[in-house]
Amino acid sequence: MTDHPLLSTIDSPADVRRLSRPQLKQLADELRDFLLQSVARTGGHLSSNLGTVELTIALHHVFDTPDDRLVWDVGHQTYPHKILTGRRERMGTLRQLGGLSGFPRRDESEYDTFGTAHSSTSISAALGMALAAQIRGESRHCVAVIGDGAMTAGMAFEALNNGGVPHQGKVPQVLVVLNDNDMSISPPVGALNKYLARLMSGKFYASAREGAKSVLKNAPPLFELARRFEEHAKGMVVPGTIFEEFGFNYVGPIDGHDLDALIPTLENLRDKPGAQFLHVVTRKGFGYDRAEADPIAYHGPGKFDPAIGLLKPLTPPKPTFTQVFGQWLCDQAAVDERLVGITPAMREGSGLVEFERRFPQRYFDVGIAEQHAVTFAAGLACEGLKPVVAIYSTFLQRGYDQLIHDVAIQNLPVVFALDRAGIVGADGATHNGAYDIAYTRCIPNCSLITPSDERECRMALSAAFLQDHPVAVRYPRGAGTGIAAGSDLTPLPWGQGLVRRTAGGQGAGPRLAILAFGTVLQAALAAGEALDATVVDMRFVKPLDRALLERMAREHEALVTVEEGCLPGGAGSAVLEALQALGQVKPVLTLGLPDAFIEHGDPALLMAQLGLDAAGIERSIRQRFLPVSALDGGGRQAAA
Amino acid sequence: MTDHPLLSTIDSPADVRRLSRPQLKQLADELRDFLLQSVARTGGHLSSNLGTVELTIALHHVFDTPDDRLVWDVGHQTYPHKILTGRRERMGTLRQLGGLSGFPRRDESEYDTFGTAHSSTSISAALGMALAAQIRGESRHCVAVIGDGAMTAGMAFEALNNGGVPHQGKVPQVLVVLNDNDMSISPPVGALNKYLARLMSGKFYASAREGAKSVLKNAPPLFELARRFEEHAKGMVVPGTIFEEFGFNYVGPIDGHDLDALIPTLENLRDKPGAQFLHVVTRKGFGYDRAEADPIAYHGPGKFDPAIGLLKPLTPPKPTFTQVFGQWLCDQAAVDERLVGITPAMREGSGLVEFERRFPQRYFDVGIAEQHAVTFAAGLACEGLKPVVAIYSTFLQRGYDQLIHDVAIQNLPVVFALDRAGIVGADGATHNGAYDIAYTRCIPNCSLITPSDERECRMALSAAFLQDHPVAVRYPRGAGTGIAAGSDLTPLPWGQGLVRRTAGGQGAGPRLAILAFGTVLQAALAAGEALDATVVDMRFVKPLDRALLERMAREHEALVTVEEGCLPGGAGSAVLEALQALGQVKPVLTLGLPDAFIEHGDPALLMAQLGLDAAGIERSIRQRFLPVSALDGGGRQAAA
Repeated sequence: MTDHPLLSTIDSPADVRRLSRPQLKQLADELRDFLLQSVARTGGHLSSNLGTVELTIALHHVFDTPDDRLVWDVGHQTYPHKILTGRRERMGTLRQLGGLSGFPRRDESEYDTFGTAHSSTSISAALGMALAAQIRGESRHCVAVIGDGAMTAGMAFEALNNGGVPHQGKVPQVLVVLNDNDMSISPPVGALNKYLARLMSGKFYASAREGAKSVLKNAPPLFELARRFEEHAKGMVVPGTIFEEFGFNYVGPIDGHDLDALIPTLENLRDKPGAQFLHVVTRKGFGYDRAEADPIAYHGPGKFDPAIGLLKPLTPPKPTFTQVFGQWLCDQAAVDERLVGITPAMREGSGLVEFERRFPQRYFDVGIAEQHAVTFAAGLACEGLKPVVAIYSTFLQRGYDQLIHDVAIQNLPVVFALDRAGIVGADGATHNGAYDIAYTRCIPNCSLITPSDERECRMALSAAFLQDHPVAVRYPRGAGTGIAAGSDLTPLPWGQGLVRRTAGGQGAGPRLAILAFGTVLQAALAAGEALDATVVDMRFVKPLDRALLERMAREHEALVTVEEGCLPGGAGSAVLEALQALGQVKPVLTLGLPDAFIEHGDPALLMAQLGLDAAGIERSIRQRFLPVSALDGGGRQAAA
Repeated sequence: MTDHPLLSTIDSPADVRRLSRPQLKQLADELRDFLLQSVARTGGHLSSNLGTVELTIALHHVFDTPDDRLVWDVGHQTYPHKILTGRRERMGTLRQLGGLSGFPRRDESEYDTFGTAHSSTSISAALGMALAAQIRGESRHCVAVIGDGAMTAGMAFEALNNGGVPHQGKVPQVLVVLNDNDMSISPPVGALNKYLARLMSGKFYASAREGAKSVLKNAPPLFELARRFEEHAKGMVVPGTIFEEFGFNYVGPIDGHDLDALIPTLENLRDKPGAQFLHVVTRKGFGYDRAEADPIAYHGPGKFDPAIGLLKPLTPPKPTFTQVFGQWLCDQAAVDERLVGITPAMREGSGLVEFERRFPQRYFDVGIAEQHAVTFAAGLACEGLKPVVAIYSTFLQRGYDQLIHDVAIQNLPVVFALDRAGIVGADGATHNGAYDIAYTRCIPNCSLITPSDERECRMALSAAFLQDHPVAVRYPRGAGTGIAAGSDLTPLPWGQGLVRRTAGGQGAGPRLAILAFGTVLQAALAAGEALDATVVDMRFVKPLDRALLERMAREHEALVTVEEGCLPGGAGSAVLEALQALGQVKPVLTLGLPDAFIEHGDPALLMAQLGLDAAGIERSIRQRFLPVSALDGGGRQAAA
């Protein structure tokens, strides 16, 4: 990567601000090439970043970052921003343990003013920053860059509703840049998308509208064209955009790959008071033909050769839990016409592509709108349908009140297929599904199943679907053991765990039972083998199998719980509560995710670091229950 | 209440549908009078219900309820609906233990198609019902009635964004009635409100717009006037409303107290295909002059004499925790100019009236927009300010992801003043703050304090404000012990509990320590006195005072935890986790809210029913730890 002569001289945005327009164009070319080479080596988000090369350059050229605040919505489009803000050399460490995050992070750079990853937070954050500046009497620009997909989430609307109104007589100095690339990860849905398309279809005229008049003074060629269009349109009347109804000065749409349009427009908007809204049109994957042709495939690819593109895997790998879910959903839908499937803009990620193809009438992508997704499901359930909401563990946090208030209080039969439960790896803390056990098991009427492998997952989903109350089934990112999931719809026996291994009484210490929740069962089985402990697949966090728990407590001197979820309030905590309620006072070691946010990195490495692999489980059990003198062989104690 | 000759014949909406227009007007008069008399006797919501008398009559007259589905947003405006749907005789039991709920409930009536109480869920629910009908091939109307305040919440926008687009070629048959009374509980804020005001200012013209043309065919007088205005306006161009941009057919605004306008308009909209939007203007408190003059005071009054109105209390009662918070906020703001206060449309309920008056520049009412409120606070905190988000325990459920993703991961110093934590009484299950201990203590970086009285609450807030990370302080609805809160800003010693009573060793059973979290301390102290147990004010759920806990475990044979929060994952659960981590294997009895939704009723009665008053705590402890033979006097054991 030595063929980037200009880029290699850019160590901070101050260097970008010194460049001439032709140099900026050269920088864009080099940056795009660097980006492609870099992501091809590390994997990561590609399409979104190829789409924001020029916009990133223009923003850092026009605004005085980091004193001006740049907030990137979602943040998976910030690789160009990272490269230009002193992190070029570290791009090879992207999304790896100890390396750069795939998202902006306040602790990574002063240019990352706000950590993002979940969508639609940027306007709220930028507005907070702008009003802080107003209160403190400081003068700075606060810019939110948000995609058209992210604009469908309610919180973006809540922020817009607050952004264009004066506070103490003064409208906050905030600029919202709508990066309109006509897609979230899944294809666009909803009325807003159609509205933006209408705005784009009238783009030249709209660029020249009243609100943008002053922009035209230093007009680049695009605007000259727009001005001519305006003359033709005299007498026509164009309604104000909805963004103007919200008190923003709307300008656009302009070509987000044209620095000659972007820079003067941003300069003009920078110098105007009040709330500004710039509608920029970009293309995901721009400049790399394979990504332009299939931006979904290149949304978040693994490593690849840019000259060849993505390869189809030669041998089919083990199916992921997502695929197991997707197959179950189709099979269940085929035999029960009450089933409806709902996704908040995660058709691909949640495994609903085939379901949509086969059952379009019963498929609903509601856009990035988790609150609506959950209450919409409740409405469907009121009418006798059986909704399955496919949603990531961390994204259900967005619909938490709706889960309690609309589904659980009314005790409606909605199944939540919680994907990405546990450690997700490269996406890191914002995406780790660490809290769903704690935050669902406190909700009355709501059950929670933690299947341990693909077959159990399919049976868990079938069991959940049979219930007449809300049930969540949590399963992790990626593949399981490779066991066949089956093609039947046999349910798990409701509320019953399964003893997978019985202690033979040959262990060196107290007679132990390891109670595993979820896919950590495999590691627990290995540890149980090493320690001659009983191992139980608990399956259900709620209802907990109290009869089995009581038997385990009676038959063993100590218990161990293992889960891939947070320890506070988690499944182990549920076991402690149940044991006390049963009057069983026992030593219990609870293993799970610590009370800290877990960083990005390889999931297997992270699980080992957290002591949740087989060696770690064995080590923790020995430390707690086996005094050193009782060790029956140092070789069996895993080295730290 | 015998002077309602027509109303007393109405046992279901079928009876309403049989009435002539003049009879309907008489019914409205009688219904309004009945409502006023009824609420004056029971207390409850008044202003909102006086505002929906005619709308309720018109909806049940025009639509074939319950086969057509009526979803009332928030639902505190459904007393007229309850009275007309067979519950007139039971209105005297409103919001009391075993009586009618103050909100719609599916288990109370087939006319209550969807339980509501938190705002802005109605469009999502109605849309679910409409699409269920479409999938099942059934033909029915689904109507959402939503206030202008509720429209500011993101989830209403998410639903609108999905409501006006076709599913499988067909736009859902849904009608949204915007009940525009120019207020949520607090005065209106935000751009949408200003937008609605603009629509209203042009109301006659707007009523006659293209989309409403067919409505005009059977035009009542108001529309005749509108038609004349339209002629004057020829040549003018009015932009499409934002509701039309979302694919809805917008009609309005019309007078929501005029049955001659409401009924023909609803009839026309009923017979049109696709997504319909009716903008109705009503006045809160309509028909009762005192409530019209001060709709906020009459939003949710206690009992009163309609002839006299609300009385000022003669002697000031004990201050509520809300007032203690409000006073602390002003005092803290006076000495620290970094403090900013944020409320999602709960200025009065959260005690911010005085703060707004004294510190208008640092006061933010963001409307019903909890997601935005939390992330906006995060943005402010990024810039060195110290935001205090005043929010009800159940409403923070709406900002849960933002609490985790925007505040906690970035470890920003935001204070959450969680009002209405625990049992709230008359509002019931939807408003009980039962889950905040469980759902916050699983979040890394986030502390949680449960003060036991007014003085402790003030000190807890001062302590929270001094931290450089997120802290939630939870306190209940209503007053505490009456102890003086003080006027200083002395903080609680961070992370330290306080022994309030030490067991003298005179008890009949094992030596016990009761660990109380929050205002249940008072009942715990009484129980501790009766049982000669040690009693501890734990104060902090997180960080838990482990040193104190270890000492209590060492010095006692058994422990009891008490909290006014859910048992699964609650503070008692945190104690169990900590004891195991400390290697202290002890019998522990955990007392708190059961794993069930708690109904509405008098809080003291409910707490007694739940065994969380002094007698109940004593009784539970005896049952668990004191064998019958050891009872030192049956008289001291409270009867159940």
